[in-house]
Amino acid sequence: MDEPVLLTGAGGRVGQAILRHLGETFEWRLLDREPLSSAKLPAGVDTDDVFIADVTDDAAVRNVVDGCRAVIHLAGDPRPEAPWDSVLQNNIDGTQTMFEAAVETGVEKFAFASSNHAVGAYETDTRTPELYRPDDEFRLDGTELPRPSNLYGVSKATGEVLGRYYHDHHDLSVVNVRIGNLTEGHPPIDYERGQAMWLSYPDCAHLFERCVLAEYDYEIVYGISDNDRKYYSIDRAKEVLGYDPQDNSAEWNGDEHIDGER
Amino acid sequence: MDEPVLLTGAGGRVGQAILRHLGETFEWRLLDREPLSSAKLPAGVDTDDVFIADVTDDAAVRNVVDGCRAVIHLAGDPRPEAPWDSVLQNNIDGTQTMFEAAVETGVEKFAFASSNHAVGAYETDTRTPELYRPDDEFRLDGTELPRPSNLYGVSKATGEVLGRYYHDHHDLSVVNVRIGNLTEGHPPIDYERGQAMWLSYPDCAHLFERCVLAEYDYEIVYGISDNDRKYYSIDRAKEVLGYDPQDNSAEWNGDEHIDGER
Repeated sequence: MDEPVLLTGAGGRVGQAILRHLGETFEWRLLDREPLSSAKLPAGVDTDDVFIADVTDDAAVRNVVDGCRAVIHLAGDPRPEAPWDSVLQNNIDGTQTMFEAAVETGVEKFAFASSNHAVGAYETDTRTPELYRPDDEFRLDGTELPRPSNLYGVSKATGEVLGRYYHDHHDLSVVNVRIGNLTEGHPPIDYERGQAMWLSYPDCAHLFERCVLAEYDYEIVYGISDNDRKYYSIDRAKEVLGYDPQDNSAEWNGDEHIDGER
Repeated sequence: MDEPVLLTGAGGRVGQAILRHLGETFEWRLLDREPLSSAKLPAGVDTDDVFIADVTDDAAVRNVVDGCRAVIHLAGDPRPEAPWDSVLQNNIDGTQTMFEAAVETGVEKFAFASSNHAVGAYETDTRTPELYRPDDEFRLDGTELPRPSNLYGVSKATGEVLGRYYHDHHDLSVVNVRIGNLTEGHPPIDYERGQAMWLSYPDCAHLFERCVLAEYDYEIVYGISDNDRKYYSIDRAKEVLGYDPQDNSAEWNGDEHIDGER
């Protein structure tokens, strides 16, 4: 039997998108700071595979990581407006703790949930709102330097740099996924920016599945569906990870599929 | 009279190189964690201009920064081998504290002492030692993504990202100086890497003088002398800052100027 895949922040939105679609794809080990209700647990995951701990707790983290072949690290303060002290502790220090445990215990692959907020300040007044429309040519592709929207974005850019360090100095494959706007069922309504960076739940799960299965060294990719509108390139995710998204926010615009639900 | 320039980490090596050559160029305000002996103070700086505080102390830092036109931020744990907890606190949290105080109090320019260790992992086995020699063509120019040598380098790369954020969201000019190998009097002996990234004391002081006087938005530059051997470009520092280095490690190689002092 394959060694398990560790999912941190399993109870959060991204974690739940992944578990809903990949619940039976891998042997899972789940970590969250708060207990997970049974509704949040896929069939086949029993309570021995669920760990409640803070990602800044070195010993607890090491115990959870030990024996896993891959880590999908989502845990952290997810609020774009989170204050510095919280992202310093939960996102920066917590991610270093995860990487340290991963290299100490021989994990092979580490997928880090980065964010569009690591590069949000590329959306300057002179570029928007044209940037959010299909005929605009501007693309970010992961080779650009970070330009965070906020201190949360600073913490995500720092996680990417930590990944670079742990990859370069240890035998660990690292992929950073700059997640766009993850919404369930359909793209955000009346929100061009969100439509341009929409990531559907199935595409999100598929992308992280590829992060566990593909072979790579160190990568920064964008996590969005194959939207007509986009200013993030998904070429690298397709090429290196074999990402093959099935959704497109343009297919929903002004369409009866949108039922008004927010 | 011009508003003062704040120098943090004034008692350290870089701080002393700056003060030795620019002691009378600016009105100074000096910050260090430890008291500065009189030998470390330039003439004309009186004890009212010297502040002893930790850069992670929000209130103390705000008090010191208030009224300054520019900040040269050197303070932090300078050890390449520094452990994570120390660089997390002293370098990452401390730098955020400085930036926050700078934008709150209306500072115009912020020069951050970054480091060659932010990009040290570009020196791969296949590139070295050729990289350190004058006929090698490889150059880093500040547009590349960080590849830290160590966790200290991660902290420096994070400081650069913090600068990007505070520049983009506030009216603050930010320059990051990736300092090479600063040694007094002459370049390192029998150390090709150090010769390739040598920064003389006079060139160091001149470069930070330009960081106070020049006009710029957000910059990443390399802080080295005009060495024949180099894999860091100084074109951007010359072009944007008006950096005009006078020293060159090649002028010392095998030369009687080297007296064997380490």
